[in-house]
Amino acid sequence: MNRYSADSLVGFCKNVFVKVGVDADKAHLVSDSMVKADLRGVSSHGVTRTRIYVDRIRRGLVDPKAEPEIIRERAATALLDAKNGIGQVVSRYAMEIAIKKAREAGVGFVGVAHSNHFGMAAYYTLQAVGEGMIGVAMTNAPATMAPWGARLPYMGTNPLSVAIPADKYLPVVLDMATSVVARGKVILAAQKGEKIPEGWAIDKEGRVTTDPKAALEGAVLPFGGPKGSAIAILIDVLSGILTGASFGPHLGDLYRNFQDKQDIGHAFYAIDPASFGDAAVFKARIDQMISEIKALPPAHGFDEVFLPGEIEFRNEERRRAEGVPLAEETEKDLIDLARELGVTWPETLP
Amino acid sequence: MNRYSADSLVGFCKNVFVKVGVDADKAHLVSDSMVKADLRGVSSHGVTRTRIYVDRIRRGLVDPKAEPEIIRERAATALLDAKNGIGQVVSRYAMEIAIKKAREAGVGFVGVAHSNHFGMAAYYTLQAVGEGMIGVAMTNAPATMAPWGARLPYMGTNPLSVAIPADKYLPVVLDMATSVVARGKVILAAQKGEKIPEGWAIDKEGRVTTDPKAALEGAVLPFGGPKGSAIAILIDVLSGILTGASFGPHLGDLYRNFQDKQDIGHAFYAIDPASFGDAAVFKARIDQMISEIKALPPAHGFDEVFLPGEIEFRNEERRRAEGVPLAEETEKDLIDLARELGVTWPETLP
Repeated sequence: MNRYSADSLVGFCKNVFVKVGVDADKAHLVSDSMVKADLRGVSSHGVTRTRIYVDRIRRGLVDPKAEPEIIRERAATALLDAKNGIGQVVSRYAMEIAIKKAREAGVGFVGVAHSNHFGMAAYYTLQAVGEGMIGVAMTNAPATMAPWGARLPYMGTNPLSVAIPADKYLPVVLDMATSVVARGKVILAAQKGEKIPEGWAIDKEGRVTTDPKAALEGAVLPFGGPKGSAIAILIDVLSGILTGASFGPHLGDLYRNFQDKQDIGHAFYAIDPASFGDAAVFKARIDQMISEIKALPPAHGFDEVFLPGEIEFRNEERRRAEGVPLAEETEKDLIDLARELGVTWPETLP
Repeated sequence: MNRYSADSLVGFCKNVFVKVGVDADKAHLVSDSMVKADLRGVSSHGVTRTRIYVDRIRRGLVDPKAEPEIIRERAATALLDAKNGIGQVVSRYAMEIAIKKAREAGVGFVGVAHSNHFGMAAYYTLQAVGEGMIGVAMTNAPATMAPWGARLPYMGTNPLSVAIPADKYLPVVLDMATSVVARGKVILAAQKGEKIPEGWAIDKEGRVTTDPKAALEGAVLPFGGPKGSAIAILIDVLSGILTGASFGPHLGDLYRNFQDKQDIGHAFYAIDPASFGDAAVFKARIDQMISEIKALPPAHGFDEVFLPGEIEFRNEERRRAEGVPLAEETEKDLIDLARELGVTWPETLP
C-alpha cells in the first residue's frame, strides 16, 4: 500500500471540500477528523469517506454552509439543530458547549438533531480530554443491525466513545460500534474483495454469511448479544428520539438513499472531574489504574494487556512517522475524485 | 420451589434488618429492593442477599445508622459520602438528588463514595422513570473479572442500568452486569450445585471452567470481549475513581473479606426529557419505537422480539399474582436466619 503524510491528506481533502462549496475552516475540520481516523488505524472512518461526503453535498443532500443553532438550553443541557449541515461541524461545536457547561454546572449534555454522518466518535471525546474533561459521544446511524431476536435491521451500529484523561499516561479511549464490528469494516472488506468472519452479520434472509456484499444487504449483529442490542437501542433513544432527529429505520442511509436527508441525531456529554474533587488527584488515580492493568499477566494467546485506545495511539505514533497507508481501492477512488474536481493529488512517501 | 407473597418477604426481611439495628424506613427500603429483584426474576440480587447484608452489619463492617452527606455540589452534580452505610439507602437518596438537579439544570449526575453493595441497579433507574426521567445507574464491584487479554481479575462485574419512560407501553429497562453473566448467577449455580456454561468464567489458572466453585476462585469474563471489558473499566472510573471511592482490586469483597469495609462507589444520572422538547412527544416517540421493534419478524429460534426489561416486567406481573419462588438453599438459609434472630418466617402460598 502507498503511504501519504497525514498533513498532505488533510490538505488534499480540504481542497476537495472547498471545491464543492465548504468554507475553509469547516473543510479543514472534516478533513482533519477523517485523517485522524486513518492515523488511529480506524480507516473505515478515514479518507475513504471523502467520496460519499462530496457526493451528498453535490446532490444537495447536505448543506455545506449550514450553521448549527441552539434551540433550547438549560444550565447543563443544550439542544442544537444542525440544519442538515456537516456532521463534524455541529459535533465539534456541540462538544464545545458540553465542555463549557461542564465547567460551570459540573456536567454538560448536548443533543443534536437534523445532522449527518459525524465520522469517528473519538474525535469529539478526545476534544473533551484536551480540556481535562471526561468525554462521551454517541450517534445513531442508518438501520443496518437487527435487534436481539429479530430478523430485520432496526437500529444502526450506533457507536459510543468515552475518553478519560490521565496524567503520565495516554488517555483511556473507548470508541466502538455496537455491532460485533463497525459496518465500515464490512464496507472495506467488500471494497477489498475479502470475506468476513462468521458472526459479524446475517444476509437478508436472516442467515449467517461470510460475504460482505450479502451482509451489506442483510443486517450486522449487535456485540454481546442482548446486552449490546440494548445498548444500541439506548444510544438511538438519546441521540435520535430525545433530540427530535429521526431514529431507527427512519434515518436516511448514507450510501443507499439519495432522495432524503439523513436526519441523524447525536449526543455529547462532558464531565468535569474537578466537580468531584481535585482534578490532579483524579488523573493520578487514573494513572494508577492504568499502571496496575498494564502489570497484569497476559491471558493465554496475548503478549500484552492493552487499555482501551492504546493500540490506536500506537498506530497514530507510527503513522505520523511513517505515513498513512491507503487501501488500493480507496486510493484509486480519491485519485479519480482529484481528477474530477481538478484538485492536486499528493505525492506518496518513499 | 415454595412460593411466598412479595409483601410477606418484604415484611420478613424488614424485621430481620430492624433486629440488627437498622431503622424501620431503611430496613424497608433494602427489603423492598431485594424483593423487587426477586419479583423481576433477578433472584441473584433478591432476598438471597439478606444473610450477607446482616452478617456484615453484625460484624461492624456496615454502619446501619449512617446518614449520607453531600460533600460537593454544583448545579448539575453532587458528590455524596455514604459513610459506610447501607448501599440501597445512599443510592435511593443519590438518585433523588440527580432527579431534582435534572429538573432544574436539565441533567443531574451524582457520585457516591464509601458505600456498600447497592443491590439491583434497576431499582434506581425505575425510581427515575417514576419521575418521568431517563435514569442511569452504575456501580463498581469487587474484582472478579479479568480485563480483556489479562489472566487475573482486576475489575468487578460492574453493572449498568438505563431506564427510559414510555407512555402506553412499559418503560424500556436495561439492567446488566458487564460480565457475560452476573456473578450472582455463578453464586446461585454454586448454591444449587449446578454447572455453568463454558464462556462464563475462567478458573484461577486462567482456564475455561464449568465448575461454579472454581469460577468463583478464578475470574468471570467480560461480555462482548474487549468492548465489554472497556465498558466495565469505564464504569469503575465513573463510580470509583471519580468519586474517591476504592476501585479495581482495592474494593473489599462482599463475601470473602471480613476485615475491611467495601468502600464501593456508584454513579447516578438523570436526564429530563423536557429539557430537549415536549416530554409527551418524547414518550410518544418511545412508544413508536417499542411498537415498531415488537412488530419485527423474530429471528430463527425466537418466538417474539423482546424489548430490554420486558421479560422482567412479565416476571413481576406473574410473581405478584402467584408469589415469589425461593430456591431451596435460599429458603433454608433464611429460615435459619429467622430462627437465629427470633423473627417469624412467613407462610408459603398454597
